[in-house]
Amino acid sequence: MPERARFVSFLSDYGLRDEFVGVCHAVMLDLAPHLRIVDVTHDIAPFDVRAGALTLVRSVQYLPEGIVLAIVDPGVATDRRCLAVEVENGWLVGPDNGLLAPSVAMLGGPRTVVALTNSEYQLAAPGATFAGRDVMAPAAAHLANGVEITELGDPVDPASLVPGLLPLPREEGGDFVGEVLWVDRFGNCQTNIDPDALVVRGVQLGDAVEVRFGNETRRARFVEAFAHAKPSEVVVLVDSYGLLTIALDQRSAASELRLRAGTNVTIAVEQRAE
Amino acid sequence: MPERARFVSFLSDYGLRDEFVGVCHAVMLDLAPHLRIVDVTHDIAPFDVRAGALTLVRSVQYLPEGIVLAIVDPGVATDRRCLAVEVENGWLVGPDNGLLAPSVAMLGGPRTVVALTNSEYQLAAPGATFAGRDVMAPAAAHLANGVEITELGDPVDPASLVPGLLPLPREEGGDFVGEVLWVDRFGNCQTNIDPDALVVRGVQLGDAVEVRFGNETRRARFVEAFAHAKPSEVVVLVDSYGLLTIALDQRSAASELRLRAGTNVTIAVEQRAE
Amino acid sequence: MPERARFVSFLSDYGLRDEFVGVCHAVMLDLAPHLRIVDVTHDIAPFDVRAGALTLVRSVQYLPEGIVLAIVDPGVATDRRCLAVEVENGWLVGPDNGLLAPSVAMLGGPRTVVALTNSEYQLAAPGATFAGRDVMAPAAAHLANGVEITELGDPVDPASLVPGLLPLPREEGGDFVGEVLWVDRFGNCQTNIDPDALVVRGVQLGDAVEVRFGNETRRARFVEAFAHAKPSEVVVLVDSYGLLTIALDQRSAASELRLRAGTNVTIAVEQRAE
Repeated sequence: MPERARFVSFLSDYGLRDEFVGVCHAVMLDLAPHLRIVDVTHDIAPFDVRAGALTLVRSVQYLPEGIVLAIVDPGVATDRRCLAVEVENGWLVGPDNGLLAPSVAMLGGPRTVVALTNSEYQLAAPGATFAGRDVMAPAAAHLANGVEITELGDPVDPASLVPGLLPLPREEGGDFVGEVLWVDRFGNCQTNIDPDALVVRGVQLGDAVEVRFGNETRRARFVEAFAHAKPSEVVVLVDSYGLLTIALDQRSAASELRLRAGTNVTIAVEQRAE
Repeated sequence: MPERARFVSFLSDYGLRDEFVGVCHAVMLDLAPHLRIVDVTHDIAPFDVRAGALTLVRSVQYLPEGIVLAIVDPGVATDRRCLAVEVENGWLVGPDNGLLAPSVAMLGGPRTVVALTNSEYQLAAPGATFAGRDVMAPAAAHLANGVEITELGDPVDPASLVPGLLPLPREEGGDFVGEVLWVDRFGNCQTNIDPDALVVRGVQLGDAVEVRFGNETRRARFVEAFAHAKPSEVVVLVDSYGLLTIALDQRSAASELRLRAGTNVTIAVEQRAE
Repeated sequence: MPERARFVSFLSDYGLRDEFVGVCHAVMLDLAPHLRIVDVTHDIAPFDVRAGALTLVRSVQYLPEGIVLAIVDPGVATDRRCLAVEVENGWLVGPDNGLLAPSVAMLGGPRTVVALTNSEYQLAAPGATFAGRDVMAPAAAHLANGVEITELGDPVDPASLVPGLLPLPREEGGDFVGEVLWVDRFGNCQTNIDPDALVVRGVQLGDAVEVRFGNETRRARFVEAFAHAKPSEVVVLVDSYGLLTIALDQRSAASELRLRAGTNVTIAVEQRAE
């Protein structure tokens, strides 16, 4: 029997208002009482597969070795597949809709993939709309108990997985064109623009750049910390994931600039003489 | 000494904004460090005993063996009783206001019931308004440590418990009359109507039924999955608890149809020829 | 090697919408897999150091022996210090902005304080804006593993810590003048006024007092339980922390009286003959 896994890291769009998350915990602990569960977050916006994929790929390098259970599943109870994916140092379980793909790639790519078709490792249920409880949480728990991934269902060609599409930034006429990936609780707006692009162009801490979105252009200083922004000053900084983030100090850049995930943003490096 | 319990499953209307839940965890772990706590949910609407009872009874069959701690307690600090109830495979702790009753019944009925009157198993407190922290969480932890239920307080006649009143559907002129029990995070509206009622009348997947509420009548197709609904189409389906649920695909049926827990709903089976 | 700690109690303003809390859990469990984490709350209002300090000091007496990790950190990535503080029965980790100070005092005062300057006990990160993940959670985990506090960084003079400023009530012309410290989920308004002040003046359960705030004066009965309030009656009672709280029964006093944390409140004892 393979070694048991100690940790399941769990992400979903289930929210904490209902009992969905609690019942998935219960199902896993009932099957694998030794398990420890890390709740990455359950407040992915309902059905927002892209936000779930981005949140998971930001987090995955920090998660303890073991199993990732990720559920944002607008296709629940249709014929979309539920998957278990073995990677070098663990497993991921989730629907086949692109949610897992960027994290699987970051973890070295898939070694073995199965569709969760073996009902012996599932809970019987009167309706099929809660595959987290009935199919995916049990699969995570059985993997943690040392069940071989190939027992959980039919093999799947890794090349057939629904890919995760993460937007790439581009350079255009000397400007950096990207988009907002994520607005966090504080209203900070993470873009997909790599700060190295600015640094290579000679932008230093304290310098200003232009931030353009919609019909607006704002001057923003490149700083190290949120608190380095003056009142009402827009700043850009390198966030904790190494991406360029648009922020205000102790106020929501998203609310005040009306930015949200998906908003197109252009960063233009100003003339140093300005 | 009885065997120790490993799990407490905890449901409340405490919310996660304040420290109420965290402090109850702390109190339990301080008394019983071996305990594992499953948070079923803490976002029951404040004081909504019925919603708490429904959430608990939906969840209870999935909870790991051990103790259920459930707190929705508008009568805190009055003379309403706090109870510990022994059932066949565990214990439930909570206020005597109907919150526990449906779950106790589902777990085979009460074997022993006590009122939590023994202050030796409670925390001293300057005020009586946080019985979760001072009375009920400690009781759960002591039970988990193997303390006999009868040590926690005075015996109570099980017949004297406040009953839980769950609304029953009825058939009326060939229609099925019930109500919305639960609106989940996604806006799906679980009713108390058993889908078998439709099936017995010959309704098959893909057929339409009528859904009536307030002054409105909507045509709704009986489908298997949320994603089988066409844009703006109302559907009914068998949810993961085996009850008839009114839904839209990736949108909130509750918001768009203005349904909420308690709304009366009638399901009428259309003529097959229509 | 010092004994290992089993529990980390974790409070922050990170919210549960993003993965901040989950990633801090993951970082701690990766370093110290034996750890148990108690989430006190993560819904402190963003940047509200005072609310965080008040919540922590209310909770700290209930937390299991071990480590407190508290993060409300508007100065993240500036030169504000991150601290580890050893007290008689444990350690506290957090930014040096007054968040920890009242709890340190309640736990008997600081024995040893260090600034978390030793990068060997930190995670490398592309940006400095998530010190919870990169600096403070690792420090908590290393302390739990038995690492000596003095290994985590440079010693700090305890007298140099930023103090926590908690507002004190005062007596003025026979009235008690204080402020709202906390509005809880239910809308109950905890003040900083000690109910003993009323009791000393002869106020008994059932008696009325005057509550003044802004331009309003309300008569409020001194009761034992929320449920003792009549419909629309304002009451004051001794809350579970021993402070005078303004409440309504099953409705939000904060919403209906327009009170919030920081609102000045005067309690006047009425003539007994009135």
